[in-house]
Amino acid sequence: MSAPDLFSDTARRANTEGPFAAEEVQLANRNAGILLESLRHDVTPPGLHYLLNHFDVPYVPPDDGWRVDISGAVRETLSLTPDEVRRLPERTLRVTLECAGNGRATLTPRYPSMPWMHEAVGTADWTGTPLRHILGQAGLGDDAVEIACIGADRGFDRGHEHNYGRSLSRRDALSDDVLVAWAMNGQPLPPQHGFPLRLVVPGWYGMASVKWLSHIEALERPYEGFQQVRSYLYRAVPDGPATPVTHMRVKSLMVPPGIPDFYTRARLVTPGPTHLFGRAWSGAGAAIARVEIAIDAAWREADLDPPQGDFAWRGWRVIWDAAPGEHDLACRATDSNGETQPLQPRWDAGGYGNNAVQRLRVQVR
Amino acid sequence: MSAPDLFSDTARRANTEGPFAAEEVQLANRNAGILLESLRHDVTPPGLHYLLNHFDVPYVPPDDGWRVDISGAVRETLSLTPDEVRRLPERTLRVTLECAGNGRATLTPRYPSMPWMHEAVGTADWTGTPLRHILGQAGLGDDAVEIACIGADRGFDRGHEHNYGRSLSRRDALSDDVLVAWAMNGQPLPPQHGFPLRLVVPGWYGMASVKWLSHIEALERPYEGFQQVRSYLYRAVPDGPATPVTHMRVKSLMVPPGIPDFYTRARLVTPGPTHLFGRAWSGAGAAIARVEIAIDAAWREADLDPPQGDFAWRGWRVIWDAAPGEHDLACRATDSNGETQPLQPRWDAGGYGNNAVQRLRVQVR
Repeated sequence: MSAPDLFSDTARRANTEGPFAAEEVQLANRNAGILLESLRHDVTPPGLHYLLNHFDVPYVPPDDGWRVDISGAVRETLSLTPDEVRRLPERTLRVTLECAGNGRATLTPRYPSMPWMHEAVGTADWTGTPLRHILGQAGLGDDAVEIACIGADRGFDRGHEHNYGRSLSRRDALSDDVLVAWAMNGQPLPPQHGFPLRLVVPGWYGMASVKWLSHIEALERPYEGFQQVRSYLYRAVPDGPATPVTHMRVKSLMVPPGIPDFYTRARLVTPGPTHLFGRAWSGAGAAIARVEIAIDAAWREADLDPPQGDFAWRGWRVIWDAAPGEHDLACRATDSNGETQPLQPRWDAGGYGNNAVQRLRVQVR
Repeated sequence: MSAPDLFSDTARRANTEGPFAAEEVQLANRNAGILLESLRHDVTPPGLHYLLNHFDVPYVPPDDGWRVDISGAVRETLSLTPDEVRRLPERTLRVTLECAGNGRATLTPRYPSMPWMHEAVGTADWTGTPLRHILGQAGLGDDAVEIACIGADRGFDRGHEHNYGRSLSRRDALSDDVLVAWAMNGQPLPPQHGFPLRLVVPGWYGMASVKWLSHIEALERPYEGFQQVRSYLYRAVPDGPATPVTHMRVKSLMVPPGIPDFYTRARLVTPGPTHLFGRAWSGAGAAIARVEIAIDAAWREADLDPPQGDFAWRGWRVIWDAAPGEHDLACRATDSNGETQPLQPRWDAGGYGNNAVQRLRVQVR
């Protein structure tokens, strides 16, 4: 790797398999996953929510003079301070966000990027104003078809220099559920979660929820930003036909029972009644309809906890009478659209949308 | 790897080199490093302080009925609630903690464990009571030579099942600076940082600061817990003579200038005056005396920010007139004991105490 290539070349990274590159480990050290045992918390405690930041976290002191500019197909160009945004009508939503690349490292071959296994998910109470209030204040033009949201974070990816940005369709951008948020769990946003302002797009994979929001542009034609048209695309074959990554697919995870081995995270469980607990979620406005647990490939129904609103994960639980020996555990959710997690991953060239069932081998003794 | 071996075998893991194992990546996904750009904050924002947890984070609801038991060579065995601990005399200390394994992944061959590069460090304001007040209340016996502090986190390492535990000498345990802490940056401890109570041992690598503190035992002979006598040992050759890991070695890190490439984190810098900024720290009661910066191996002095107390990192800065081309940057701290960071890592079998200078290659254009 030589620096000139990185900053001028547009070559893609080829899928790979086997042991992991230093670059992947470096990304894993930067980007943080939830600890699976922390799925017990309805709202993920501060610092345990997953993080995926493409570039550096911008350094924004509280008195920075931050502005978010609204321009393009609007009646009036605006430049709002965080205080001005906070004076707009406020909503708080409990939202589960998952990284589109969650599970990437379990695909073979995998895409060289952040090597998530299962842990790129979290739930928070986000407080902000619906984006539509900002668009309303600027006077959204009738010809606007997409709203691009651009962050202050800037860098290169595959030779392209850009600020991180994503767009929403006019219809999605005018939903009351899409927030320009200034608080996470009742506190100002932490720097790494987008201080002072970020987008939160419930039901979508996390890439839609642009952080360090600095520019909103109403567009009369589709947005062509790198993260919209060159990344976050499903591809069944490398360089093949592409479909945009949008809503979260139905998924469930369990808290690994018992105690771990430090290095391998293998689990040892004490014989007898064992509480298995986890979470399940889905995007696209779908509710969790059913969670099943498999013990050694024999499936049974889990009990569902009460829902926590339209956009947050749902708890599930089952008591397993653990008998001595080695056992394979798995969990599988089905949503109200009838979508069910696959038993085997759907391979994707970029490593997106892997919602295959989580499997766990435990020893009981 | 088969589960029975993990839970009964005492075989050590052999040093390795080249690409990284899935187990290492799994640990990197669990354990979080600071983002180097966050070194700009005097106090590391919540969620950006490094984390290294050996086993699962215990799930402790606020009304859990937590107790810390004090036993062994004491006049009176105690069992204190967090509220009772909070009624003891309070101190707040700003403390920089670094993982003893920071920099492990840059050694060749490396030890298969958490593959830290540079990022296992953070600074927080810890509020608690000096451990000596708890020992005083129990009445520490004259024969007590060590104080063992045991956490609630339990698991296996190299075939040994144990709760995480470490001891301090009688003298260290009676220092006014060793805290049993209940707050981090003015808030209750987050679960992953030891809620409801943890030890904070300023100046030492992080392994001494036992989390989820549940048992304090005054011992009349040296503690023989796994993490004291089988781990956290410097070894110049595998299985060779061992020296305990104790205080942090002098070290410095810089905020990488410019903007990154997503995958490689290579940096592109704009020509002209560029602020280089970073932090430096040392343990063992030593202050930072000097920081030098090298641009293409030519060393110059950095300006030091005012100190932040006896136990926290110190800021340093220099303005570099960046000329077009490729450049190698490095930083090197010297402490008041005259210790200086080495230019090349001292190899260690377990990957501990790597305080070699950070090097960064940047392109300016």
